[in-house]
Amino acid sequence: MEKRTLTGVVLVAVAALFGGAAFAQFAKTEDAVKYRQSAMFLVGQHFTRVGAVVKGEAPHEKDVFANNTALVDTLIKLPWDAFMVTGSDKGSSMKPEALAQKDKFMALAKANQTEVGKLAALARGGDLNAVKAQFGETSKSCKACHDPYRSK
Amino acid sequence: MEKRTLTGVVLVAVAALFGGAAFAQFAKTEDAVKYRQSAMFLVGQHFTRVGAVVKGEAPHEKDVFANNTALVDTLIKLPWDAFMVTGSDKGSSMKPEALAQKDKFMALAKANQTEVGKLAALARGGDLNAVKAQFGETSKSCKACHDPYRSK
Repeated sequence: MEKRTLTGVVLVAVAALFGGAAFAQFAKTEDAVKYRQSAMFLVGQHFTRVGAVVKGEAPHEKDVFANNTALVDTLIKLPWDAFMVTGSDKGSSMKPEALAQKDKFMALAKANQTEVGKLAALARGGDLNAVKAQFGETSKSCKACHDPYRSK
Repeated sequence: MEKRTLTGVVLVAVAALFGGAAFAQFAKTEDAVKYRQSAMFLVGQHFTRVGAVVKGEAPHEKDVFANNTALVDTLIKLPWDAFMVTGSDKGSSMKPEALAQKDKFMALAKANQTEVGKLAALARGGDLNAVKAQFGETSKSCKACHDPYRSK
């Protein structure tokens, strides 16, 4: 038991060296990549469904719409630790700059989550006109991070 | 506008023929496959984190634990429509039987969601011992659908 605890301490220390607590959550680097890609794909799918309503291409069914924005709000909180795993920029569309500029990257991520939170709150309110401007702001906050840190 | 509405009606009718409302949610069949694989990967990651606590391999931090089970509870509701898209068994680990036996497949999916819901409720309560038995029941309900419908 004592040995096991010590192993745990060493593992945590190693994780702290190689990418922080984020590392400890994933069995391997590829899992971190797959995790964030999965979360971002789902975010994209549900955000697209929200966008279709905002653009008038799909009907505004209040509960479905609020559920889609709530899912985006839940899912957008997930991928960030997975982006911060050292070496996980290899073979993915994340530019190495995201790891080199962690604080800047994470500040953009935080700003994005704030905009998504506002969108979800407005969608729960059910006033589609109020949602429309916030949808634009939210899209901008996605792009603000994609532009510098995601390769085309 | 009238033409557009008519196009919408035709599209819905076509969707009803080729896989139901599920089809309409995805731009292409591959998106349905990627959607369910993404959701299931995230479910697997968070369920593994729950399992590590249940097995005593990770500390029981009540909020983290409850958050992981809540995420599994949210995510496990997502992939089912995506499984029901005609042709989406091609090039995936879903056996064609899942589409041929939709009612049986969906009943197992429903039972699984019920078990996950119970697990999340117990995790919110914070009594780890109460969670343990339910973790076993939940795992069984995953396996009950994987065994007949997922290829190894």
